[in-house]
Amino acid sequence: MLKPLGDRVVLKLIEQEQRTESGIVLPDTAKEKPQQGEVVAVGSGRILDNGQRVELEVKVGDKVIFSKYAGTEVKVDGEEYLIVNERDILAIL
Amino acid sequence: MLKPLGDRVVLKLIEQEQRTESGIVLPDTAKEKPQQGEVVAVGSGRILDNGQRVELEVKVGDKVIFSKYAGTEVKVDGEEYLIVNERDILAIL
Amino acid sequence: MLKPLGDRVVLKLIEQEQRTESGIVLPDTAKEKPQQGEVVAVGSGRILDNGQRVELEVKVGDKVIFSKYAGTEVKVDGEEYLIVNERDILAIL
Amino acid sequence: MLKPLGDRVVLKLIEQEQRTESGIVLPDTAKEKPQQGEVVAVGSGRILDNGQRVELEVKVGDKVIFSKYAGTEVKVDGEEYLIVNERDILAIL
Amino acid sequence: MLKPLGDRVVLKLIEQEQRTESGIVLPDTAKEKPQQGEVVAVGSGRILDNGQRVELEVKVGDKVIFSKYAGTEVKVDGEEYLIVNERDILAIL
Amino acid sequence: MLKPLGDRVVLKLIEQEQRTESGIVLPDTAKEKPQQGEVVAVGSGRILDNGQRVELEVKVGDKVIFSKYAGTEVKVDGEEYLIVNERDILAIL
Amino acid sequence: MLKPLGDRVVLKLIEQEQRTESGIVLPDTAKEKPQQGEVVAVGSGRILDNGQRVELEVKVGDKVIFSKYAGTEVKVDGEEYLIVNERDILAIL
Repeated sequence: MLKPLGDRVVLKLIEQEQRTESGIVLPDTAKEKPQQGEVVAVGSGRILDNGQRVELEVKVGDKVIFSKYAGTEVKVDGEEYLIVNERDILAIL
Repeated sequence: MLKPLGDRVVLKLIEQEQRTESGIVLPDTAKEKPQQGEVVAVGSGRILDNGQRVELEVKVGDKVIFSKYAGTEVKVDGEEYLIVNERDILAIL
Repeated sequence: MLKPLGDRVVLKLIEQEQRTESGIVLPDTAKEKPQQGEVVAVGSGRILDNGQRVELEVKVGDKVIFSKYAGTEVKVDGEEYLIVNERDILAIL
Repeated sequence: MLKPLGDRVVLKLIEQEQRTESGIVLPDTAKEKPQQGEVVAVGSGRILDNGQRVELEVKVGDKVIFSKYAGTEVKVDGEEYLIVNERDILAIL
Repeated sequence: MLKPLGDRVVLKLIEQEQRTESGIVLPDTAKEKPQQGEVVAVGSGRILDNGQRVELEVKVGDKVIFSKYAGTEVKVDGEEYLIVNERDILAIL
Repeated sequence: MLKPLGDRVVLKLIEQEQRTESGIVLPDTAKEKPQQGEVVAVGSGRILDNGQRVELEVKVGDKVIFSKYAGTEVKVDGEEYLIVNERDILAIL
Repeated sequence: MLKPLGDRVVLKLIEQEQRTESGIVLPDTAKEKPQQGEVVAVGSGRILDNGQRVELEVKVGDKVIFSKYAGTEVKVDGEEYLIVNERDILAIL
């Protein structure tokens, strides 16, 4: 599996046509790219200027909304993933 | 519901034609996009370089004015929300 | 009333044709936009990297000169206000 | 009078044709805008990330050279002033 | 051999047509440039503002995915290497 | 004389045709502007975020090489000077 | 000789046609400018925000690879040198 570095997160994309339990549908202007994902791996966190490591707020299994165009796509065993920075994640569903 | 990350805030938009109690009407040049909202969820705050977490100044229920074009729109159960950074919120009404 | 966030300030605009007591008149090149205002509300200040909150230098009632094009206009009860960052305020009259 | 904020300085412009005592004349390429001024008011200084306030290096009465195009012009009682950041002041004469 | 400076990493490129054990295949849009590599040398780490040195998260032998267009190519003894900043490495495989 | 502020330095330009003792000649591509100077005044240094003042590395009398296009020219008593930031000084001869 | 300031390094260029002992040859796309050099002088290091001085990682005599287009060329006694920031040095050979 993928082990993201720093404050990066690996997401499994949730397709637009899969309505979530809470019934979220993204607006038309967001249709070109999925904006929802499930967290499948999280990095070790980022390091502050005082040397302290800040753990991520999201954890594996969280369903999240992230910024369009954020991240980098990779394919593992035919499955697409997106690696994003945590700062590109807007909210947990 | 949506749980915003960091210093993000989830707003329920207040339409332009709904005059608020205090009678605020936005100028004509601001008509393309609503600039008022009600806070429905707040993030856990941002982390300073010394590791200290700073809570948000706004709280759930606050009516706020925010910068035009700020934030990202999402739809939950047919209702539109806007996720913004607290720094895009100018003032509490 | 408006309660500005952080190091923001709410200004009531002073029209160009209202000569101030000290007789200040702005140069011709500044005529498109007012550059003077009276402080009607101040934010709670900005937070330094060490967690310390710095109060604003301006206080309610101060007459100030601010950068052209700075800030965001809002209308409350038919009266126009400008919300600016304190760093856009150049001087107190 | 004008009380500048932070690390700002109010300058009274010294016209190009007024040769200073030390005989400084600015080069031809600088003719469009004056580059010399006399300090008439200084701000309270800037605040470091550790909360410490740093006083300005220039004081009232100093004759200074400042960067062309720096600052904002204002007119008080028919007299033109320039409000600049101290970092736009290159040297004291 | 190459000893990278600071938070830099020397990678041996893994060609697109070499399927990895975990079966990762990069998407079509990534075909112009390889995105996988094996770490062959790591720098001494970066230095924080408090003087502390932060060691790299990746170590020699790690297989990594890195940002397209990141880094600088060099050839040693006919073998191509890429020197990248650790922040351009997205994840360990 | 000129007393530069902060980490600024006043240089007396050394013309291209004046070969230095060590025989340095700048390459043809540098001919439009002089790149050598002698330090005639130094500022009080820059202030770190912890409030500490860092003195300049160059001192009066040093012959230095500085970046082309850096600094601002001034004329004092018919003599041209250049005021530069110390960070635009590359090396001491 | 040249004494570089801060975290700068003086390099003696190693021409492309001089194959190094380790047999490194730079790729064709790098032919316009040399990318290898030998360190002939190093600065006193850079100063962190806490006042601590960080010595350079490279030392006199090191053979290094540096970023194309980095640095400034100077000629001393007919010999060309390049003054670069240490951050433009990618690796030691």
